[in-house]
Formats: sequence, C-alpha cells, structure tokens
Amino acid sequence: MPTEQPAGHLMRREMAEQPHVVRELAARSGEIRTVVRRIVPEPLAGVVLVARGSSDFAAVYARYLLEYVTGRPVALAAPSLFTRYGRRTEFDGWLAVGVSQSGQTPEIVDTISRLGDCGASTLVLTNVPDSPLQDTADGTVALGAGSEEAVPATKTFTAQVAAFAQIAAVLGSVPWGDGDWSRTAAAMEDVLDDPAPAAALATELAGEQRLLSIGRGFLYAAAMEAGLKLVETTGIQVAAYSPADLQHGPIAMAAPELHALAFVSPGPVADDMHDVAAQLSRRGVRCHAVAPDAALLPSGEAGLPVPHGTPEGLSPLVHIVRAQQLALEVALVRGIDPDQPGGLSKVTATT
Amino acid sequence: MPTEQPAGHLMRREMAEQPHVVRELAARSGEIRTVVRRIVPEPLAGVVLVARGSSDFAAVYARYLLEYVTGRPVALAAPSLFTRYGRRTEFDGWLAVGVSQSGQTPEIVDTISRLGDCGASTLVLTNVPDSPLQDTADGTVALGAGSEEAVPATKTFTAQVAAFAQIAAVLGSVPWGDGDWSRTAAAMEDVLDDPAPAAALATELAGEQRLLSIGRGFLYAAAMEAGLKLVETTGIQVAAYSPADLQHGPIAMAAPELHALAFVSPGPVADDMHDVAAQLSRRGVRCHAVAPDAALLPSGEAGLPVPHGTPEGLSPLVHIVRAQQLALEVALVRGIDPDQPGGLSKVTATT
Repeated sequence: MPTEQPAGHLMRREMAEQPHVVRELAARSGEIRTVVRRIVPEPLAGVVLVARGSSDFAAVYARYLLEYVTGRPVALAAPSLFTRYGRRTEFDGWLAVGVSQSGQTPEIVDTISRLGDCGASTLVLTNVPDSPLQDTADGTVALGAGSEEAVPATKTFTAQVAAFAQIAAVLGSVPWGDGDWSRTAAAMEDVLDDPAPAAALATELAGEQRLLSIGRGFLYAAAMEAGLKLVETTGIQVAAYSPADLQHGPIAMAAPELHALAFVSPGPVADDMHDVAAQLSRRGVRCHAVAPDAALLPSGEAGLPVPHGTPEGLSPLVHIVRAQQLALEVALVRGIDPDQPGGLSKVTATT
Repeated sequence: MPTEQPAGHLMRREMAEQPHVVRELAARSGEIRTVVRRIVPEPLAGVVLVARGSSDFAAVYARYLLEYVTGRPVALAAPSLFTRYGRRTEFDGWLAVGVSQSGQTPEIVDTISRLGDCGASTLVLTNVPDSPLQDTADGTVALGAGSEEAVPATKTFTAQVAAFAQIAAVLGSVPWGDGDWSRTAAAMEDVLDDPAPAAALATELAGEQRLLSIGRGFLYAAAMEAGLKLVETTGIQVAAYSPADLQHGPIAMAAPELHALAFVSPGPVADDMHDVAAQLSRRGVRCHAVAPDAALLPSGEAGLPVPHGTPEGLSPLVHIVRAQQLALEVALVRGIDPDQPGGLSKVTATT
C-alpha cells in the first residue's frame, strides 16, 4: 500500500530541487555551448520562440534576454499561423527554440517541425529524453530537471530560465558573471529555507477571487509565471501586466479590496515599478513587494523578501520561488491539493 | 451653460461613427498604398510593432495578419529594451509600425525613433495630425477617425484594425476581396442598430468581478481588446486567452459561477473554439458566443450575434462592436459613466 502523503508534497519536493537543478545546468555550460554553436546560423538573423503555459513565460524571459545579448529581433511565434492557417514564413538564418517540459505537446512539435521546413535552425529545451520534440529538432538542451510529477511546473520553469540564460551566454555578452550562478542558487536556497513570509501572505490572500501581478523588463516573465502558478494552483484569477500596460486602461480594476504582487529588483526599471506601486497605493491597492529591499516600493511593506545581490538578469530564478511558495500555501489554505489542482493534467494536448 | 448629457453619450456617439470611419479608410486605399510603397524596404526582412493599450491589440491583429500576408517574421517590440536598458537591435530591412491614438505617448515616440536609428523604416498610425509620433517617422497613415473624447477607445481601435488591413493588402494577398469592405461596414451598422442582446447580457454580468474572454487566430485580438474594454470601462477583471493558452493551466479558474465570452467565426480555428467551449461548459462555465452562428459553440446559446458573411480576416471589426456595446451597458448598469471611468485619462504618459 502506498504511504499517505500530505497534500503538496510533490510540488514542495520539486521546488526544493531547484537550486540543484540550476547548479547542474551551470556546470553543463560547456556542453550547452557545443550544442548551440553547432546549430546557430552565422550571421544570426533573429530568434523565434515556441512554447505554451509555464514554458511560454520562460520564453518571455528569453524574448528579452536573447534580444538584449544578440542585438537581433526576437519574436514569440503565433503557432496557429502554421498549424491552422497553413502559412509559411521565411526563417532562413533564424534560430527557432521550442520549449516543452514533456516534449510531447503536439502543437509545439508541429510548429518546430514547420519552422525547420521554413529555413530555421531548430533547438529544443525539454525535460524528457527521446521525446517527439527532440526527434524533430537540429539540437537539444536537456533540462535535466528529472521527472516532474506535480501538475504546476516549478523546477522545469527555473531549469528553462537557467538554460536560456546559458544559451544567451553563448550568443553574446550577458549582464552577469560566472560567479553569479552559485550566488543565485544560494539565494534560491535561502528563500526555500524561509517559507514563513509566503505562509503569512497566503493567509491574507486565501479568500481572494482576483489578484494583480506586476513586473517589467527581466522580471516581467516572473510576474506572468507567478500569475499562472497562482491561477492553476489556487483558481484565483490573476491579471499580470507590465506597469506600462497596466496604466493604459486595466488600472481601472484597481480598487481598495485588491492585492498586487510587485516583482522588483534594483535596475533600470525599478523606478517604473515604484511609480506604478505609488499609483496603485493611491487607489487603495495593497502592493506586496517581491524584492530584495521593500524600500524599492513606496509602501515599504516587507512582502516576500529575497536575498540581496542577485543580478537583475538572473533574478527571475529567485523571485519566482517566492511565487511558487505563495501558490502552494494559498492552495493548502483553500483545501486544494496543489499537486493535482482543478482537474488539470500534466501534458496538454493542444494541436 | 452646457446641456446635461446622459452618461456614455460620447462613447455611444463614437461607436456609431465606426462604419463611416472604416468606409473612409477603405476609400483611401490608393493613398495608403502610396505611403506604404514609398517606405517599405525591398526585400522586406520583417515587421516590428510598437503600441500600448487598445492600440496594442490592433497590433496583435497585425501581428497575425502581416505575417500571414508577407511570409516574413512579425514581432511585437519590447520597448523597455530600448527605453530602459539602452540596447540597440539590428533592424536593417525591417518595417517598424508605431500605433498611438494621440501620437503623444512618450514611450511609443521614443521607441519608434530608436527603431529608426537601428535601421528600420518607420510608419506610424495615428489619429491626431502633426503629433510628435508623426514627426519622428518616415511615413504616416492618418486614421482620420476624428477627435475621440471618451476614454475607452472605440472608433480609434476599429480604424487601426482597418488601417492595418489596408496596409496588409499593399504588402501581400489578403484573405478577402475589395467588395468585403462595404459588407463589413454594413455588418457593423447592423450590430450598432441592435443593442438589445448586449443590454440583456449586461444585466446578467453586472454583478461579476471576473470574466473570461477567448479567441484564436484573427479573433484573438478581438478577445483581448474586449477584455481591455470591459476592464477599463467597468472594472471587471477580464482574463483573455487563446484556447491553447487557457488549456495550459488557467482553465483551473473555470468554475460554475464564471461567464466567458467566446469570439468565433467560421474558419480554420472554429473547431478549437468549439472544443474549448465544450471543456468550459463541462466545468459549468456559461459561454456566450460572439458569433454569426451560435451553433459554432456546443452550448448553442444566442449570446451576442453578428451578421453572417464577414470574412474571418475582417471579423474583428464587427465582433468588437458587440464587446463595446457590452462594456457600455455593463458600465451603465453599474452606475459608472463609461466616458470617464475609474479616474483614467485619455493620454497615458508612460515612458
């Protein structure tokens, strides 16, 4: 007979593996360099990214980072143009990157295959060896995160972000140094060892039906992935925006009963985050900083602290662990098993 | 003394002008052809789009349509890379299109200027002549929608969509014929002449805090713009997704008390919309079809009908009028003046 396990034990275990997964990927930088160098077009015309779900938010991180380092256009693919409308786009000289935990989502496999037919060199990031996605591509970066059993992706997401960061270091000059990897993994560990702030905030948010999640630049992806993690794990409807997008209309939803998560690090977009938090606070919204220093926001509330010193470009790896903790704890307070929430399954068969 | 006007009279008047605005743009196809031909690079490497708010959803429509007709990569810009991180991306041979009702949003002006410095030919769509945005660009398509005074953009959005459709016709073979413009404008008129379905649904939705909005392919932009129109006009938090994105996690929010708007037309993605509506219905969600035929969805409810016969590629022009009517009516039921909701101003000064 199987031993009875507490709700969320899988998600908790997989979250705890993340520092190790990130360290392992950092140790494989030579192997990743070899794969990427072998297939990347010279000169590189641009990069197109194909993903859904959590993987799509790792792709949003890459959308910023890869354009930052390559100085070439980076686009998120519109899969339906290929799979539904039967179009062909000229991708000679482009690198296409497909991202899928399972490597099985038919839509991703089909789109990567068609991008290859359209001239792109194709690279895939996947967690399951010998998958259909891997068979269809010119090269593979195995995430090596190990089997992920909880429905909400945690270690897969951070592995994808870390893998994109490694790929970026092959393609150009990244805004961090090699030594920052161990610092970042240690910061993830520190957050994992300190679940109390997330548990406290979870009690406050447990009755909410809706929530805001805000980030800009490198942390935009973290704000979006935090939104997805919360919605899929707890059913709370989370609207994720950059400050600029929020200010162009959706801020009308900001009302005194609303809570917002604000993902912020010191850097070029910190002032934008400060300004939007001030605007939200004037409307009575409670802004919870996910930040190394709560003073980055005007309210100065502790929120969900992260360690100091992670470079902004790697900060999504640390900030997102806070959101995972929050999603897990809110689910538990609401009586949901975060390992198997809301009738979701691990592989989504969209085509 | 000014005459007392009923709440929403500006939005209602501007919505009513839309068929005329679309007809005028169709009549200016020769002028638009001349502007676009003068500046579009030969060969065209790709198209990059810059916008925020409603204009950003017109850009989402263009993201699909322009890649469809040109067979070249189309990307939405990440403005912060230029305005905050000070990066330069190689855009030789690219067409950059900036979209702004006012032509004054500093972030859009700055980003278009920098894209020009990076080698792109720059085209802007704007509604206000002699704006800073126009001064910064190689060419302009004036929307000619006339002054828009209500905060929620209506005729500006449909003018932007119609202008992008005209630009697409210059750049390639569009999936409609010239005769379809008068048919589409007439369909918009038919919807405007029939506000009863939106008023009825507004009564049903008036107490909601949250809502889903679903569309795919050409109608993805309509689902997103419908979400923005509702949130900025009524404060209801609307989550807009494509079926594939919804199925990768967010569907966990689907619960028996939830309502969804489903934007659908006959075409290659209609089956996807049918499938996701069936999935939502099994979870007890009430799906309201915005469609020429309610039988496109399994529930078969009337929802918000639109006339038959608009080509799928132009259907956002018609479908979005239904969402505008709904936003207006929900605001009125909630006691909000849709012309001036939630302390929003017409020009958003994000940088």
